[in-house]
Formats: sequence, C-alpha cells, structure tokens
Amino acid sequence: MTRRPLFLLSIALTLPLAAKELPPRPSVADVVKAAPDSAWRPLDPQNTLYLEIPAGRVVIELAPVFAPNHAANIRALVRDGYFDGLAILRAQDNYVVQWGDPDEDKPRALKTAKAALPGEFTIPLRNDTAFTRLPDRDGYAPQVGHSNGFPSARDPKTGQAWLAHCYGMVGVGRDTGADSGNGGALYAVIGQAPRQLDRNITVVGRVVDGMPLLSVLPRGPGPMGFYDRAEQRVPVASVKLAADVPEVQRARWEVMRTDSASFKAVAEAQRNRGGPWTKVAAGHVDLCNVPIPVRQRSAE
Amino acid sequence: MTRRPLFLLSIALTLPLAAKELPPRPSVADVVKAAPDSAWRPLDPQNTLYLEIPAGRVVIELAPVFAPNHAANIRALVRDGYFDGLAILRAQDNYVVQWGDPDEDKPRALKTAKAALPGEFTIPLRNDTAFTRLPDRDGYAPQVGHSNGFPSARDPKTGQAWLAHCYGMVGVGRDTGADSGNGGALYAVIGQAPRQLDRNITVVGRVVDGMPLLSVLPRGPGPMGFYDRAEQRVPVASVKLAADVPEVQRARWEVMRTDSASFKAVAEAQRNRGGPWTKVAAGHVDLCNVPIPVRQRSAE
Repeated sequence: MTRRPLFLLSIALTLPLAAKELPPRPSVADVVKAAPDSAWRPLDPQNTLYLEIPAGRVVIELAPVFAPNHAANIRALVRDGYFDGLAILRAQDNYVVQWGDPDEDKPRALKTAKAALPGEFTIPLRNDTAFTRLPDRDGYAPQVGHSNGFPSARDPKTGQAWLAHCYGMVGVGRDTGADSGNGGALYAVIGQAPRQLDRNITVVGRVVDGMPLLSVLPRGPGPMGFYDRAEQRVPVASVKLAADVPEVQRARWEVMRTDSASFKAVAEAQRNRGGPWTKVAAGHVDLCNVPIPVRQRSAE
Repeated sequence: MTRRPLFLLSIALTLPLAAKELPPRPSVADVVKAAPDSAWRPLDPQNTLYLEIPAGRVVIELAPVFAPNHAANIRALVRDGYFDGLAILRAQDNYVVQWGDPDEDKPRALKTAKAALPGEFTIPLRNDTAFTRLPDRDGYAPQVGHSNGFPSARDPKTGQAWLAHCYGMVGVGRDTGADSGNGGALYAVIGQAPRQLDRNITVVGRVVDGMPLLSVLPRGPGPMGFYDRAEQRVPVASVKLAADVPEVQRARWEVMRTDSASFKAVAEAQRNRGGPWTKVAAGHVDLCNVPIPVRQRSAE
C-alpha cells in the first residue's frame, strides 16, 4: 500500500531504517518472473470457455476432475448455443456475478444438454490425484491446497475432496434441490471467499482472465443483487469452447503448475513477505490468498 | 446461489427432499430483523466521515481506539478541507481502492494537520476493552473477534491487538517507512481480505455504507491499479466529518453492537446455516465472513 510508486522511492531514501527491518525476500512478482517454462501449462481448449460480454472476453478454465458431468453438460450447452444472447442477471456486492436465462416465463429450450444433473459437490478423494497440500491451517477443512490450478480442500475422514469458493471461482447456480442445477446458470465469486458454500454447490472452474470485467459491474438493486429491470442486464454475446474457436482467435493463457517449485515459492512469498516495506511477515497464507499466476504464451 | 428467487420457489415444491436434510435455522437476515433496538448503536458524528464522490456518499466509521493519532489527524485534514477536490487514484482488482492527492509535483499544502505520524499498526491489548472473541480459529492470529464494530485480532503473548484487513476496512497508505503515513492517502479493501497487511498498516476504520460505489470503479491500468491518466481518476468532491454537517443532512446509520446476543446469533447463522437450501453446514466462520449489520435509524 503506497501513495504512489514514484513518491515511494523519493521518500524511501530519506527515512531512517526501522530498528528491526525484515531482510528483503523475493516477491510474488519476482518468483513469477523467474519461473522456468516447465512451471507453466497451457489451457486445454476442451476445458476452456470464452464468455463474451460487451466489455470483452472472460476466460474460464473448467475443472472436469471435480465436476465431470457438469463440465460435459456445459460443453453441450455451449455447442448448442444455449448461452448466446442470454445475460448477466445478478451482481451482488462482495459475493457473486451470475449469468443465465433472464426469461422465467419462456425459458430457452434445451437441445442436447440435460435440464438437471446430480450435484457434484464433492468427489472421492482418490480421484483428486493432483493435490498439492499447503502447510497452512484452514478453518473450513482439515486440508487445503491446489489441484492442478484450482484451490481445493479435502477431508481424509470422509474421503471427500472439493473445490474451494475463492475469488474468481465459478459455480453452478441451483435451486433448493441438490440435483436442480445443469450449468445453464453460472456465477463467479467477486468478493471475500464465501467458503460456507463449499460442498453445497457444484464448482466447475475458475476465471483465468477477465475478472475485472465482471467485478466492476453495477450491483443489482433487487434481492440478492438481481437486476430488476431488463435494461440493467449485461448481454452475453456468446459462450464458446476454445476448441471450437479458430486457433488464431484463442487466448494464449498459461497457468502456473500448482505442483511446481515455483508455485511453492509463490505461496511462500505471500506467506512470509520480506522488507523493507513489510515490517511483520504474516507467517501464514490463507488458501484464497495464494495467487494462482497466469501468463500469456508468447507467439511462436 | 439461486437462478432467480421466483424460480427457486416454483422448483422447491416439486423436488423430493434430500435424504438427510438440515433442519431450517434462522438466517442472518432473520436475526437482523429480530434484533431489538438495544442491539444497535448510532455512529458517533465525531468519528464518522462522509466521502462524497460523483456516485454518492461513502460513510466511514473511524476507529479511534486503534488509531487515535491518525483519527485526530484525519479530522484535522478534513476540517482543513484537505481532501476536497482530490481524487480516487487507484483501483486494483481484488485488493483496494485508494484516494488522495494526485499531484506529486505540487502536493497540497497542509494547514493544521501533520505531514507524517508514527504508525499505529497495533495497540496494547489492554486498550482494546470492547473485544468479543469468536470461537473460530484463524490462521493469521491466535485470537480474532470484534471490537465495537470492527473485526480485530490479538496475540496475548505479545500483548498486542490490531484491526483486521477485511472487506470494507479503511487503511492509511504509506511509503516504506513505518512512520510515513498521515491519513491523507486512504484506501478501502474491495476483495479477498489481504490479512498479510495486518500489523503493517494503520487501519483507521470501516466503510459502513457505500461500498458498492467504490467496488465497481474501473480498475486502473497502471502498476498496482493506479490510473495512468488524469481523466481516469474519480473526483472527490469532499470529505466531511458528520459532526460538521447539519443534522438533517447526516446519514442515520446504526451498527449492530458486536457484544450483543444478536451479533453472536449473526455469526452463528453464518457458521451453521440451516436447510433446506444448505446441505452441509460449514461449522466454522472466518473472521472476514461475519457480516457486521447496519441499519438506517428511522426518523423520529
């Protein structure tokens, strides 16, 4: 937190050092910059969605390991053109932005996709083969960490693993029934992690790029942040699967491998910041405070 | 997370009950609605700021117990008209919105306020007489809870107490030196709680009303979310102390007393949600996930 970057430098030279200054340590940015190519993986075009809204493209990575049936149904919805011409319906401050079908009276017809699916709130722990545990303790789960780029949690006692509701995670809106969602209504978390939703919702993925296009949307005046007039809604031009988009039009995002030494160093850089700006290192990092770095792959 | 409130009701009647349904319990909204008048306290006009921007008024409650010198200096800045005509300079996604003096070359002159103050990052634990502890464990501090309406933490071993960087908390921007801030550059948290800043920054208060006016501001394209062109900045018409505003123009906000039985019930309603929508109660609530309710006092 500085007033301005330039001002920071000019003042820093004139102030005496604090009595017990922390030694400098690599920042998250330093670690990301130094990460070798082997620490990055490309997005799989079969698991990458492009949500196109007037402000631009939001890139979402699906997590088929945690929600195989919903990922498949969302692919079917996308290929049927289900989302094209729908809208962002809801923006609730410090909570979620949600998109889907605004028309209650004449809901959009389905083609090949299912109307409802059994919830995929947790999976058997043994199915989550890519888990890298954080050493940090968590209030909501016995173990937390990352599974191939997604923040996740697990409970060895129940044998369950699940994705955690951190900033930017994408979930499946549902009604009261656990089996009432189908992926046609999706939301992204835009505030403090609502971890109380963990194991109550099918989490299907994460926004890899474009969160600021969603997080700045005007909050809806209706209950739960729903827009109460049609003209407040934000049109969804289309949702496409990257695999269905010509290669030159695809986003070139890569995600840092969460089982890499670089990612471990990212978490440590956030957990124990060095000086001189930081005076006290936290000695802890919350699951949802670990950045999951992405980068643009350079053109070949 | 529902598609739409009405749709929720229509579906709920047609779906079979889940095998092990949670019994219904009062929601946070139920608890707030039922809270007696004695569970609420008015804002003190001497500790209430009105930040006026084009979109409206942001109401900030100062926390003089935790930052007595900064609260006094901010009052001096406000009464000197320091902020009037300044600007919001920075909006960094999932982090902070910051306001202050945009002019590095000719910084605004101070009148009665000080140019720099010793940081008030922690206070002696014994000065925090209003602490109500949460039973929930926290990764960043041995004890967490609320001190007269503010999320706070403490460490009995070091004898320190401090305010926690939750959504909506307001802190004092500073340069590298711990003693380089004066309250003329302030920020509000607009994303996942950056608790690693705890004990590194003077936290002076909390936004009681108007967060959505700040959280939707376009993110700045410059480093750390600073706006890089003057026209991107959001003008600050004025910052006033409520005590200096005619009573009819004052906001009538009241904050739920965090030592009340109602507030304890709010935390419990968030910690252990009842059915039928919720299928699994979290059994835990993170400090920054406990809502601190406010209400408008009815006109007498």
